[in-house]
Amino acid sequence: MFKDCLENVRKKKPLIHNITNYVTVNDVANALLAIGASPIMADEGEEVEEITSICDGLNINIGTLNKHTIEAMKIAGKKASELHHALLLDPVGAGASSLRSATAASLMDEIAFDVVRGNVSELKALALGATSTQGVDASEADVVTQDNLNEMVHFTMNYAKKTNKIIAITGAIDLVADSEHCFIIYNGRKEMSRITGTGCMLSGIMTAFLAANSDNKLEAAAAAICTMGLAGEIGYRYLTEGEGNASYRNHIIDALYHMDGKTLEEGARYEWR
Amino acid sequence: MFKDCLENVRKKKPLIHNITNYVTVNDVANALLAIGASPIMADEGEEVEEITSICDGLNINIGTLNKHTIEAMKIAGKKASELHHALLLDPVGAGASSLRSATAASLMDEIAFDVVRGNVSELKALALGATSTQGVDASEADVVTQDNLNEMVHFTMNYAKKTNKIIAITGAIDLVADSEHCFIIYNGRKEMSRITGTGCMLSGIMTAFLAANSDNKLEAAAAAICTMGLAGEIGYRYLTEGEGNASYRNHIIDALYHMDGKTLEEGARYEWR
Amino acid sequence: MFKDCLENVRKKKPLIHNITNYVTVNDVANALLAIGASPIMADEGEEVEEITSICDGLNINIGTLNKHTIEAMKIAGKKASELHHALLLDPVGAGASSLRSATAASLMDEIAFDVVRGNVSELKALALGATSTQGVDASEADVVTQDNLNEMVHFTMNYAKKTNKIIAITGAIDLVADSEHCFIIYNGRKEMSRITGTGCMLSGIMTAFLAANSDNKLEAAAAAICTMGLAGEIGYRYLTEGEGNASYRNHIIDALYHMDGKTLEEGARYEWR
Repeated sequence: MFKDCLENVRKKKPLIHNITNYVTVNDVANALLAIGASPIMADEGEEVEEITSICDGLNINIGTLNKHTIEAMKIAGKKASELHHALLLDPVGAGASSLRSATAASLMDEIAFDVVRGNVSELKALALGATSTQGVDASEADVVTQDNLNEMVHFTMNYAKKTNKIIAITGAIDLVADSEHCFIIYNGRKEMSRITGTGCMLSGIMTAFLAANSDNKLEAAAAAICTMGLAGEIGYRYLTEGEGNASYRNHIIDALYHMDGKTLEEGARYEWR
Repeated sequence: MFKDCLENVRKKKPLIHNITNYVTVNDVANALLAIGASPIMADEGEEVEEITSICDGLNINIGTLNKHTIEAMKIAGKKASELHHALLLDPVGAGASSLRSATAASLMDEIAFDVVRGNVSELKALALGATSTQGVDASEADVVTQDNLNEMVHFTMNYAKKTNKIIAITGAIDLVADSEHCFIIYNGRKEMSRITGTGCMLSGIMTAFLAANSDNKLEAAAAAICTMGLAGEIGYRYLTEGEGNASYRNHIIDALYHMDGKTLEEGARYEWR
Repeated sequence: MFKDCLENVRKKKPLIHNITNYVTVNDVANALLAIGASPIMADEGEEVEEITSICDGLNINIGTLNKHTIEAMKIAGKKASELHHALLLDPVGAGASSLRSATAASLMDEIAFDVVRGNVSELKALALGATSTQGVDASEADVVTQDNLNEMVHFTMNYAKKTNKIIAITGAIDLVADSEHCFIIYNGRKEMSRITGTGCMLSGIMTAFLAANSDNKLEAAAAAICTMGLAGEIGYRYLTEGEGNASYRNHIIDALYHMDGKTLEEGARYEWR
């Protein structure tokens, strides 16, 4: 039950280590606090082993990677793997540069990620070596629709099987799968793509869901996606005349803050295969 | 027509590469999304050639420069010059340190910027070697007023001629000129200076205006300034009792989100010489 | 009088150099602007001597320290010490890693800080070598309450005496002391801990209060704490249905923007020993 997944986050208050980009880091921190977790950010190689050791999960996001933070990602990731912490990779911009594609690939080789979560272009870049011409946004040609849904479910489950990780592809329709099952999630609104950081925030809170529900990771990942999408729907209803993407961002984090198990259970819209 | 300049941004959705400071980077990303463009941030030397190659414009802002990002600015700037992308320099704090003044000067030597946009103290530092005692804000003594307007128009056009770039000096009165013409713009509100990042956001969206209007760059730059100033005026009208600079920031980005050609055309207040 | 402390900030508009973490840096900048000061952020070793020289105060926050910024902190701190600028250390996460504890300790050795401000776990880590298991948040076991108040006042004053600095420990109850006197402050709300950056914002504005009230630093530090706490109380009253931590953050900065001496004087709740 998604309800339990959320309530476990609020009850266990997991401490999440984030090595993430400086564009949306403040929103990631506030989203984690909103959902009942605690964030810590640290990206100096010399300290990340210690920092991640006191945490319950590690969220690695390559959105503004550089040589020093890549090094820190590897050190922290290996330690968190040893400690069996919740581990998530957000391969922002994979396919947009060789460095991003190669870094995501080598992180996936060296670190026992539970989940890789990105948009469809990023996941295709990792799985197929495709390159992206849309930067950090999904290319229109790649988007998951009702028309290509079966094919994309197959792709997601296949890649999950190949990598032995949960794969989460988020967009207008969200897919999250392991090798055996796939959730198809319909929550969220298209206007969320006009805000920077909704994907990054989702990766942050998903890491908290994984840390607080370690026996049930696929469902935890799906619950996080429904939570974020539903926050997008609730936040949208609070928009008043004249409000745009800046206010919408605040309403979404506010909706995370007030999200409870009952609201999530009633609002979640998904199929299961 | 400014209307067309804005509508071209919304239609062409240019992808803008930003190497910018970590203070206001989130607002720059949301302002670009608000206006209809797409942002990507990347400042690792190893990847910036590739990143900038898939973009339509490059916005370089030296607000929190360091040795690594200066290197990345040069690599990205040279590649973007080769590709004839829209190119803007925001010389934040030029005059406040030798490193900033020297970096801005060497970037201007090596990179084919279309526009240099800053406050009056920064532009005087670059043109005249003046130093600033006000950090990243314009010194009061430098401010453009009706009294020194003719002189400042002359200064701006002269510096544009000398550098063969469009020069944009923004403040209470905004000037944007090439060697032959100067727009004098009256949009905006003084309270915008109590928000961090209004200048940085303007530089971001101006790069998008330049990218979407490459045949008409002076007018595109002027349209961006009017758009930002008018968003400041519209956002101010949405302030309710108790709201201050944090809410005002959101209202301004929200106003960018809703800005349309007709509103811009009717609200733009400027002269042309 | 706290009223005078605040009014001096608004009158003198001190320029504050911040070497601070990239998580909350935007909020620190807007909080400084809200209170009437001017922020500048610069963390490249090559320029920080010059930058800090044109400022009135230096706020060092180790929240996302790395080897390069540690170097910059030391260079800037020594120069600001020579110039007798207002100097504050925010030892974010001291006790959570050896690097943070050691960096805070060596900064305190080398730099003439007026104030060290942190949560109780951070200050215990510095004073007693204790380690923290709560990352950047205070451990529950450490929290200042009515039950351990006398003991904690003693601890704070003792550590102030030993270090010859003003020590500020903020949380549900705030303590700020030199070797002879201690303010015990009751302003603020517990919901502020669900926002990232309230501590960082306080450190920023406290540096401005110190810079504008150099003859009266203990009172200035106490006034800053009351100002931030009272802004938290006022901001909370503006929360409407559905609003959570993202909106609360904005309301708090907005309340700083509108804070005046009379409101502060009437709203400050503290004892003095």
